[in-house]
Amino acid sequence: MKRFVLTVLVENHAGVLSRVSGLFSRRGYNIDSLSVGETYNPDQSRMTIVARGDESTLEQIEKQLSKLVEVISIKHCETSETVLRELALIKVAVSGERRGVVIETANIFRAHIVDVGIDSLVIEATGSEDKIASLIRLLEPFGIMELVRTGLTAMERGAELLGSD
Amino acid sequence: MKRFVLTVLVENHAGVLSRVSGLFSRRGYNIDSLSVGETYNPDQSRMTIVARGDESTLEQIEKQLSKLVEVISIKHCETSETVLRELALIKVAVSGERRGVVIETANIFRAHIVDVGIDSLVIEATGSEDKIASLIRLLEPFGIMELVRTGLTAMERGAELLGSD
Repeated sequence: MKRFVLTVLVENHAGVLSRVSGLFSRRGYNIDSLSVGETYNPDQSRMTIVARGDESTLEQIEKQLSKLVEVISIKHCETSETVLRELALIKVAVSGERRGVVIETANIFRAHIVDVGIDSLVIEATGSEDKIASLIRLLEPFGIMELVRTGLTAMERGAELLGSD
Repeated sequence: MKRFVLTVLVENHAGVLSRVSGLFSRRGYNIDSLSVGETYNPDQSRMTIVARGDESTLEQIEKQLSKLVEVISIKHCETSETVLRELALIKVAVSGERRGVVIETANIFRAHIVDVGIDSLVIEATGSEDKIASLIRLLEPFGIMELVRTGLTAMERGAELLGSD
């Protein structure tokens, strides 16, 4: 079982997300995370898919992906050449005196407090998966009430562009 | 045409993403952005879906969503009660003397430079859609080479939890 990060540039049509994700699920390939959003070109969207499985199945999936008319380009992200980032919102339980410690912990990770409730805080953190995982581990003792992660999003370092090869 | 932000808590099964997105596309409902990632519970994933269309169609989609066995809960995000954030990676063309201006612009938006190339910079920005859009507008004159956005991710303010009603 290997973990893969794929970037897929697609035409912005209804149904393309369902077709792309269907190719993975039909082969029993679980998607850990996927994010799809706008690009600078309003006719195109860009997906970042994190999935796990064996290499030969992934090759087949990629072949089928490239046959979809809406798919413009597909790229494997090699960690060293790619900026990989994700965003997490973490709701932490805080009583009066523990609030300060939670805020300090967030500061160390350059995370931001984006909501303050009577007995909860929402922390916004951005970074690599490892950084987010470390922050979560440190916040665990306080009580994590809720967690949402965008999943990784990816961009090649340097001037290379997706879809320009 | 109204714009909706939905948060959907689902069981972490292969195929659930394809089924959920299929419900939208079968009714011609275009998804502007979607992110799905891990939660604190490894058996569950959480999706944030931004879509546009008429209200009655969305109601039907929500009804069908709630019938899927993998769907644990669905919530409409009302802007005032929800923290809505997204992450963008923006690759900007920069020649020597313009580099400083681009970095200053990023600083104003509390964005970070995450890669420096000979003639390009990658900026990581986090915030509301409006903030990201303003930053993109300011960077446009320099030349945006590439843009990837995670799409919005959402969390209710205060101590309320998704799936706890």
